[in-house]
Amino acid sequence: VAEGFCQRPPDGGVASARRGGTRTYRASGVDTAGRARAVSALLAAARYRAPASHGRPVTSPGHYAGLVRVGQETIAITTDTVGTKVLLAEQLGRWEDVGEDLVGVNVNDLAAVGARSVGLVDTILFGAASVPTFRAIGRGLRRGLTRARCSLLGGETAQVGEIVRGIDLGGTAIGYFPDGRPPVLGDRIRPGDVVLGLASSGLHANGFTLARRLLREERVRLDRPRPGGRLPLGRELLAPTRIYCEAVEALAGEPAVHGLAHLSGGGVRNLVRLHRGVRFDLDSFPEPPSLFAWLQMLGGIADAEMYQTFNMGFGFAVVASGSGEERIRRALARAGFPDARRLGRVARGTGVTVPSRGLRYDGYA
Amino acid sequence: VAEGFCQRPPDGGVASARRGGTRTYRASGVDTAGRARAVSALLAAARYRAPASHGRPVTSPGHYAGLVRVGQETIAITTDTVGTKVLLAEQLGRWEDVGEDLVGVNVNDLAAVGARSVGLVDTILFGAASVPTFRAIGRGLRRGLTRARCSLLGGETAQVGEIVRGIDLGGTAIGYFPDGRPPVLGDRIRPGDVVLGLASSGLHANGFTLARRLLREERVRLDRPRPGGRLPLGRELLAPTRIYCEAVEALAGEPAVHGLAHLSGGGVRNLVRLHRGVRFDLDSFPEPPSLFAWLQMLGGIADAEMYQTFNMGFGFAVVASGSGEERIRRALARAGFPDARRLGRVARGTGVTVPSRGLRYDGYA
Repeated sequence: VAEGFCQRPPDGGVASARRGGTRTYRASGVDTAGRARAVSALLAAARYRAPASHGRPVTSPGHYAGLVRVGQETIAITTDTVGTKVLLAEQLGRWEDVGEDLVGVNVNDLAAVGARSVGLVDTILFGAASVPTFRAIGRGLRRGLTRARCSLLGGETAQVGEIVRGIDLGGTAIGYFPDGRPPVLGDRIRPGDVVLGLASSGLHANGFTLARRLLREERVRLDRPRPGGRLPLGRELLAPTRIYCEAVEALAGEPAVHGLAHLSGGGVRNLVRLHRGVRFDLDSFPEPPSLFAWLQMLGGIADAEMYQTFNMGFGFAVVASGSGEERIRRALARAGFPDARRLGRVARGTGVTVPSRGLRYDGYA
Repeated sequence: VAEGFCQRPPDGGVASARRGGTRTYRASGVDTAGRARAVSALLAAARYRAPASHGRPVTSPGHYAGLVRVGQETIAITTDTVGTKVLLAEQLGRWEDVGEDLVGVNVNDLAAVGARSVGLVDTILFGAASVPTFRAIGRGLRRGLTRARCSLLGGETAQVGEIVRGIDLGGTAIGYFPDGRPPVLGDRIRPGDVVLGLASSGLHANGFTLARRLLREERVRLDRPRPGGRLPLGRELLAPTRIYCEAVEALAGEPAVHGLAHLSGGGVRNLVRLHRGVRFDLDSFPEPPSLFAWLQMLGGIADAEMYQTFNMGFGFAVVASGSGEERIRRALARAGFPDARRLGRVARGTGVTVPSRGLRYDGYA
């Protein structure tokens, strides 16, 4: 069970270091290795096997959601927070978008195991409550819940000013597999499969520690559009996580679908979570949207950092047999996702590559 | 659905005010009324009704867990944090007990709707990770999971030093109703029923903002037993939340059980969550354990504050028909809870009373 723990790589927390006029960003505010050791220690110590009468966990090592068989149903559960994007919301005094993110970051993880979202509980930790802020968060929750067709089943709002500065937005979502639909865990992925990407709506809720630091250091104004941008930059950055539930509903039961990935914290490395015994060659990964290119240039950030921190234009991936590709594209288009792009192919090997950038990642975190 | 939101009253965050030599503690660090307004605004704005194909929520206004019918099963979900008890853990460098609390605060809420716990996900927010700390939290999780016979299904560990000071421990638990066992939501409670209490193991995870402030102001040493205490006070205060799952398993399907309550934040007021159309007269509530009496004397805290902030010796309550009382006591004793005590009776009216202290509470929060 413990291996099913959904460990998320830090989404930034990256320090800048000037080196001979150019810049590289390296993990430092976040001690990635130290964190991985600490989480491993926690999981090893927490290991416990419940009797079968108390649910039978379905093994899904490192996957997006935990699965457990109870009675006649399999339930999927996942938990995630909006992370440091809330600090941008606070700075701008705009809370609706991150309310929607709270839904998106969770239901997309359920979509990545092929589950249908049914319920969400939120956990809001805060120092001081304000009616307008909470109302805006609520409006965003409703937008997200409506898109995901998911019910709000409860929540916890805890005033803990001694622990939390500002507001932390977290949540947990549960889903199930209606009509005998099988979970999609990636085990059927094989060399020759294609990787299709579904466009993101912007940064989603990842990379904000890095992005915010960049903007601060470069004294970029958030109330004006960036070069090439349309909206004021702050609003462009806050754009809520696109919700992919309907795409997965449209593909339910499609045998050509071998894997589903929510490209959240960890960027393209997330694909490794689906199958550790193949290589994902993203040899047709398109040029990223201009927001990403601009951020990269602004900070002089290395490609390797960009592709493992931001979604680079694609928030969700479908791994499928080549023979099913056209059928899948048509089903996605009917569900409102006409923009699926071929990102690459599955090959023998391990890890993820982006050949156009000379990138090769070996693991997930 | 929104009414099913499990709103928890603030567990302390209480300021002291000296008045003519004695003290009263009143909510102030926590703005209770403001918080209630903010949560109401959030819930009103978040309201959304999902189609029945995406699960059918079971109405349970203000109850301990949200319930949703999916396929052939009813799933219960609840989310809670350990709150400011983690600050005491940090001060003492002892993390195992609060790891166990993380399980207890959640599975006891599931027990309060009669559900069997099957899975937990944890959410750990932190600034800096340490292997010994995380290992100790993991050991505590295992202790709690073992007592609740519950699997760890996943989790999120987020390094967000810009938002969180120290460590925040939260979690979400899911449960179900095996073998057609009906949920216990309190609707069958009626005048004449008896209220039985199951002993707590100490403060559990409630009232720590108040307790810590008291200890600090009075410069009480945590490394020595208090007067009448056995363990060093810090360790006595950290004692983990007693887990009541086995008590509820022992009572499953017992028709005389009309209601179940986890006496967490809000103390005896929690009973109101079960039924708003009756009065719970706790006319045989025993003298509280000496830890509570000592804390009360130390701070000069009013009875009204004590009974709505701390559990006063009872962490869980069973409301049952008088004719079933003896059978229930025997079942509890067989399950390892021989210490059930009659706390009082259900009468016509509303709210909760503790006549020996002259207390009357009208609502929950």
